[in-house]
Amino acid sequence: MPINVVLLGFGTVGESVYRTIASHQDGLRKILGTEIVVKGVLVKDARKPRNIASDVLVTTDFKKLLELPKIDAAIEAIVGVEPAYTYGVKFLNAGIPVITANKEMAAHKGEKLRREADANGTEFHFEAAVAGGIPIIAVLNQLLHANRVSKIEGILNGTSNFILSTMRGEGISFDEALKRAQRNGYAEADPSNDILGKDSFYKLMIISELVFGKQPEWKKVECTGINELSIKDFEEASAGGQRIKLVASIGKDEDGNITAAVEPQSLNETHPLYHVEGVDNGIVVHTDLLGRLFLQGPGAGGLPTASAILEDLTQHFQKNPNPKPFREASKVRAIH
Amino acid sequence: MPINVVLLGFGTVGESVYRTIASHQDGLRKILGTEIVVKGVLVKDARKPRNIASDVLVTTDFKKLLELPKIDAAIEAIVGVEPAYTYGVKFLNAGIPVITANKEMAAHKGEKLRREADANGTEFHFEAAVAGGIPIIAVLNQLLHANRVSKIEGILNGTSNFILSTMRGEGISFDEALKRAQRNGYAEADPSNDILGKDSFYKLMIISELVFGKQPEWKKVECTGINELSIKDFEEASAGGQRIKLVASIGKDEDGNITAAVEPQSLNETHPLYHVEGVDNGIVVHTDLLGRLFLQGPGAGGLPTASAILEDLTQHFQKNPNPKPFREASKVRAIH
Repeated sequence: MPINVVLLGFGTVGESVYRTIASHQDGLRKILGTEIVVKGVLVKDARKPRNIASDVLVTTDFKKLLELPKIDAAIEAIVGVEPAYTYGVKFLNAGIPVITANKEMAAHKGEKLRREADANGTEFHFEAAVAGGIPIIAVLNQLLHANRVSKIEGILNGTSNFILSTMRGEGISFDEALKRAQRNGYAEADPSNDILGKDSFYKLMIISELVFGKQPEWKKVECTGINELSIKDFEEASAGGQRIKLVASIGKDEDGNITAAVEPQSLNETHPLYHVEGVDNGIVVHTDLLGRLFLQGPGAGGLPTASAILEDLTQHFQKNPNPKPFREASKVRAIH
Repeated sequence: MPINVVLLGFGTVGESVYRTIASHQDGLRKILGTEIVVKGVLVKDARKPRNIASDVLVTTDFKKLLELPKIDAAIEAIVGVEPAYTYGVKFLNAGIPVITANKEMAAHKGEKLRREADANGTEFHFEAAVAGGIPIIAVLNQLLHANRVSKIEGILNGTSNFILSTMRGEGISFDEALKRAQRNGYAEADPSNDILGKDSFYKLMIISELVFGKQPEWKKVECTGINELSIKDFEEASAGGQRIKLVASIGKDEDGNITAAVEPQSLNETHPLYHVEGVDNGIVVHTDLLGRLFLQGPGAGGLPTASAILEDLTQHFQKNPNPKPFREASKVRAIH
């Protein structure tokens, strides 16, 4: 029996997932013992031409996707809290696992979705929401159990890291570097979430919940972007042998208080994040046993994000090898 | 019911595992729902005073450990292929999972032990055998399924990396740097496995089997150590903006041929391994979807290695939550 999935969103990430399922079908079949079949895709504009096989339901109507019989997983690659959250809840309520790349939604609603998943005997996965292809969620969630994590520091936004690397490397202003990032496709037309640190903040909150079981009060988290950095700031940092990076950090003190911040920091060469350049992301995990673990890799982009989504999907169905039939198929079909 | 374990070896690693099980009992109980109890320790010299609780069997006689009733896992932290391999087989034959930190044994006998484990319905784990606390085995084994790995490059030996960092940083000769490493406890009295590249080679072979399903013919793998590097080599590298690192690399070409080597390489600043200094290890994984993933952390030492062993132990009993009673308890007890 194949694993049937639906895609919510067909932007860079959604399309990369679709293409990668096709290009990696042989390898995925070897791991899962069965094929992955995309049964439906939710899009915003039905008239836009897309290279999707004709037996895939392409629709702007979410209800039609939910009504598809025997769906085993929903992959959510849209932007913003709504309607992604509402869609996620509906799939989870139907016993269908949800895999998301949506950091804003996961930061706001991750805990609720996890509880919803638990209540319905299924799972909510969000590896792709933090640091693109770097398997940081799985490393923290699956691999660092015996360790006590005291602190995490990360460069979690590739756009702002590209801008900072370019400002430093070429001695140009923030505005010029932003334009360069936009020309190269590394920054959106409205880059505010990236350059004001909000994107890093969302990812940090997701990490906080995973590692410390809760988020700090959002208002109390200092969140400073990179938009006010000047050429002079970079000249001063370089003169002192330092590089300016937008660092998201979170730690727990001995009393259990969580302190978090997103802010530009001047780092010395001995700091692992000093060497993370361009659109890469990097994460330093401080633990009591292991010591300091550092991970670096592509923080965004279609393929790295698709990689994270497919790893979530693969791990889910390795853990739950017999995809259940659509739990309430008869009831849902009655909506027709 | 507690999880009962035996420790084979009580050197730096074995003792760190023993102490960490005690110090992290609360956290481990939270994850596993039960306590971990060390029931026996195999030592070489029974007369050496050791800080081990009196209800733990401390013995030089392997048979006595094997005869202990209701053992759920064996942790192997001795050096060399034998007697570690023979001990491992005996535990696996009794249906008891084996967790090792022994790279030489895992490189020579890993495939056999995995088959032995399969045949007996149990498992063989070796995270601690490669790159100390860095969870590289789990990342490759559990997290990078959808990805096709094309190449892996690593600094897999902390001793030689410390020597190279010291030679470069202080402009001293190999012999002087080796002495420094020995004084600091980073090198053994007989450092040949480390400085001749053998230790890196063993780890590379373990990675090869995991990632490519086989090892290359050992004789065909170039294995050059660091013992012939001169002050002049370092001066030349520095003049060109490069650093000399002992790099273990393995790749698979499109025809499925595996090429592997361990050798000193001059790396530019843009290479992630350039920045791995001192006793740290670093690994670069090249994949088709994710791109280039880089991991860095402590490559050796008691606590980082104990960390890897305890993560293996934790993951094993999370996956197999009801420890089975000793499979052939009655038969084995009859040996008494």
